[in-house]
Amino acid sequence: MRILVTGGLGTVGAGLIKELRSRNHHVVSCDLHHQPDEIGFSLRTDVEAPLYARCDVGEFRQLERVFERCGPFDYVYHCAAEFGRWNGEDFYETLWRTNAVGTKNVIRLQERLKFRLIHFSSSEVYGDWPELMVESVMDEYEIKQLNDYAMTKWVNEMQIRNSALQYGTESVVVRLFNTYGPGEHYSPYRSVNCRFLYCALHNLPWTVFRGHSRTSTYLADTVRTVANISENFRASETYNVGGTDLHTIEELSNVVLHVTGADPRLVHYQDSEILTTKLKRVDTSKSRRDLGHKNSYSLADGMKLTADWMKQVYRL
Amino acid sequence: MRILVTGGLGTVGAGLIKELRSRNHHVVSCDLHHQPDEIGFSLRTDVEAPLYARCDVGEFRQLERVFERCGPFDYVYHCAAEFGRWNGEDFYETLWRTNAVGTKNVIRLQERLKFRLIHFSSSEVYGDWPELMVESVMDEYEIKQLNDYAMTKWVNEMQIRNSALQYGTESVVVRLFNTYGPGEHYSPYRSVNCRFLYCALHNLPWTVFRGHSRTSTYLADTVRTVANISENFRASETYNVGGTDLHTIEELSNVVLHVTGADPRLVHYQDSEILTTKLKRVDTSKSRRDLGHKNSYSLADGMKLTADWMKQVYRL
Repeated sequence: MRILVTGGLGTVGAGLIKELRSRNHHVVSCDLHHQPDEIGFSLRTDVEAPLYARCDVGEFRQLERVFERCGPFDYVYHCAAEFGRWNGEDFYETLWRTNAVGTKNVIRLQERLKFRLIHFSSSEVYGDWPELMVESVMDEYEIKQLNDYAMTKWVNEMQIRNSALQYGTESVVVRLFNTYGPGEHYSPYRSVNCRFLYCALHNLPWTVFRGHSRTSTYLADTVRTVANISENFRASETYNVGGTDLHTIEELSNVVLHVTGADPRLVHYQDSEILTTKLKRVDTSKSRRDLGHKNSYSLADGMKLTADWMKQVYRL
Repeated sequence: MRILVTGGLGTVGAGLIKELRSRNHHVVSCDLHHQPDEIGFSLRTDVEAPLYARCDVGEFRQLERVFERCGPFDYVYHCAAEFGRWNGEDFYETLWRTNAVGTKNVIRLQERLKFRLIHFSSSEVYGDWPELMVESVMDEYEIKQLNDYAMTKWVNEMQIRNSALQYGTESVVVRLFNTYGPGEHYSPYRSVNCRFLYCALHNLPWTVFRGHSRTSTYLADTVRTVANISENFRASETYNVGGTDLHTIEELSNVVLHVTGADPRLVHYQDSEILTTKLKRVDTSKSRRDLGHKNSYSLADGMKLTADWMKQVYRL
């Protein structure tokens, strides 16, 4: 199969490319930065058969050129996005351009070229829905998104849905729940798992907000499930891809202390954050049924592997 | 009162400025284009006491400068927006930048400067809600917006709501229903009232989609009601501002034929449009109660006045 992965340098994108290539697909990826193995659009490249293109999905011309020069594609995994709640609040211009306009650019090309789209959404679309997050909740209950990042993800789902209704495009949406693992490079805007580990390994203090519960999904599990979509593609389906074991943020922090051996005095505790979902419980029965989703790694195992990777990457 | 009207060159903005000035408010406006009475930011202006500033609300620096040079303001009427369903589909980059980023820019300044915001939303947020459109419907039922324009308007409402929750900003939202009248310059993306009149006056054919019913609101009624908000401001309220007499698009077209005397053979009929709301009935009891909203013009009277204005503007 010929596959394009947008956002190929991101945590999920990079993991997904490896998985898809291990299944012998022809995978091209694109992202914002220059890379050694990138295509030279107007010049001769040194690397043979480059499979990466520099492309900002928010710029239609750049995206269209990837399809013209590297396509056609049977499937497009659209991972490219500004990620995270506070990142979205602090960089909202970039958020709306990349996520809303970028995804619309992808859809416009899909309407023309008819590839199948797998779009990455987020558990954030569920807002502060207090009960079990089943996919159908979003079709049955009035839910308001609590931040601009969440809104862009919900907007994308509606854009995709409207295009399917109006132009017959074929797409699948996956809603990822707190995915972490090797490949997630630290920034203050990353997942809480990544941030706590980074702090622990660098002897930096971190803050635990009390009263929030989450599941965590280890990247390798996410990536395997999502790669399976190209083998059992059901247009217009939406899948939760997440973990099942609920843990508090306090418990996560304790796992971090355990796997890193960091000083417990680094941890500070605060009351719950405003406009942040208190409890996220996810129903993954649909992705288990259609995509063979499973959670093979315990939180302790996954965090141990991530810590090992982080020590290498940051040379600790 | 010191008031800023963004989008002051638009149909609603321009009408609103006139109304607010007639009530002796100090009104500054901004919009995308140069104007004779604009402020020279870095040069001496010829016109005395200019009350217009060129400003793209999607550019934070330009917007901030309006507040620094022309403020402070007690109220901001935020009319600036890319308008209309098909306009949004055809110019989606501009739509998301102006509407999502532009409104976020306004909100960020509001969080800092604490002015009261009156934001213009649209009946489009109600999607294809088949029953009476009451404001509270959006808090009670799951509704998906049917186009990107509608999504930006709903996003704006959530952005405003989240800012109120998180930072205590004070805002009122008005959802306008099919507003028409003198001041609405023709483009193919404008209201159906404007388009039919323009075609009739220029001997151009027009298409009537069967099976759609709408109300129309005459601009003078909209503007009076909206101006009243600054005199009875209730933070976090949302108001429908619309007409009450339901008419089909066929009936509207017949009114156009009547007030212009155009040839009935100019009219073509087609079956209903996909992804367009079939029936829009609006409940305006809340704006009647709080803002003294009323519909003083029948469709025939309003269309006659609009036709007269159009004949002048286009020198017919």
